[in-house]
Amino acid sequence: MREAYRSDLRHLVEDLVAMLDRVHEGLGGASTALLDGDLALAERVIAADSHIDEDQAQLDETMIQLLARQGPVAGDLRLLVAGLRMSSTIERMGDLAAHIAIVARRSHPQLAVPERHREDFQRLGELALGAVGSSARVISGNDLALAAQVEKDDDEIDALQSDIYRAVTRHDDYTSAEVMNLTLLGRYYERIGDHAVSLVRRVGFLVTGDTLDSHGGREDPEEF
Amino acid sequence: MREAYRSDLRHLVEDLVAMLDRVHEGLGGASTALLDGDLALAERVIAADSHIDEDQAQLDETMIQLLARQGPVAGDLRLLVAGLRMSSTIERMGDLAAHIAIVARRSHPQLAVPERHREDFQRLGELALGAVGSSARVISGNDLALAAQVEKDDDEIDALQSDIYRAVTRHDDYTSAEVMNLTLLGRYYERIGDHAVSLVRRVGFLVTGDTLDSHGGREDPEEF
Repeated sequence: MREAYRSDLRHLVEDLVAMLDRVHEGLGGASTALLDGDLALAERVIAADSHIDEDQAQLDETMIQLLARQGPVAGDLRLLVAGLRMSSTIERMGDLAAHIAIVARRSHPQLAVPERHREDFQRLGELALGAVGSSARVISGNDLALAAQVEKDDDEIDALQSDIYRAVTRHDDYTSAEVMNLTLLGRYYERIGDHAVSLVRRVGFLVTGDTLDSHGGREDPEEF
Repeated sequence: MREAYRSDLRHLVEDLVAMLDRVHEGLGGASTALLDGDLALAERVIAADSHIDEDQAQLDETMIQLLARQGPVAGDLRLLVAGLRMSSTIERMGDLAAHIAIVARRSHPQLAVPERHREDFQRLGELALGAVGSSARVISGNDLALAAQVEKDDDEIDALQSDIYRAVTRHDDYTSAEVMNLTLLGRYYERIGDHAVSLVRRVGFLVTGDTLDSHGGREDPEEF
């Protein structure tokens, strides 16, 4: 019985990583759909988000059952509580990937990102995808050192977002629709980076045995 | 001992409501600072957000201790899990109120909201404040019927956000800074409304004994 319980906890980690893999796929598709103006791909990403939502519902129910049946304490309890928080963070990341695809869809047949910011968004897409992939490896325990890389990716995302926002407010030759898209897209990528950081920080707290930081998901008031 | 435990659960509800009261105060201040261009008030709202973060950290630790010491099952377990989710939702609402104040601060000495959208934002402020206040009353169990009002307020917020976004993309006489502010502010108010809905839905699930809906915080892909 105890063995089954340990196996359940291992499954929990695998399930979180599987959810992140779906987010990785959705985000990659969303970034491509955005830059290529690929409507069919955007639609697929938007539709696929419901699978991530279902994953979360199922995983949360499993965790609540574990809490109820095993009455875990200490480390196991904190792992389950962290798992509940992480599943909701990952679900949110899926929403944000879908939001990027929605901007692509709304702009079709035009591109949402004006040519002069194309490279910025290529880079944002790479960075966000890298942060999601690295956070999955950190959670699966395969490479804890990647946590620092996620923080670095997030810093670069924040800096790029600030650059874009600054460019937009300093020049008045953008259309209103362009400004709106750039504002929303910058924010979506930035939030995905924040969430990836919150995931790896949570793992860090679990590994070091430090107090669970309930602020893992907190967003610092951003400025630009 | 059992009596102390029941009292702890009652305190949990009171603490969630107290957090929401702080959000209510912050949001009221943020909306006023935004419309009046009141820099000092904006600064106070931004600084006060850290209290909400501390409230959350403390409340979460209390809930984890309750989970560890009491090994609750069934309804009590679901109440605690819902409490953990609600505290993080409320913390997020506090962040969003601070974000509104940050937009006000960044625009100072100019007003972030152009005159032609002043009434829209007065109404958004009222609606969001109403939704926060009503959700607190629903959580405290004083008026469950107010849940429907929160849903209605949220629908009206969504409609107003869409109106503003549509106006912005259809007219090209906004400055880029105006478009960016209107886009971000519309999104912040919209998210506060979503979070209020997620809170009252969670209470609804607890009261009806229905399965905990882990999707309470989910955002439907919005369109406009």
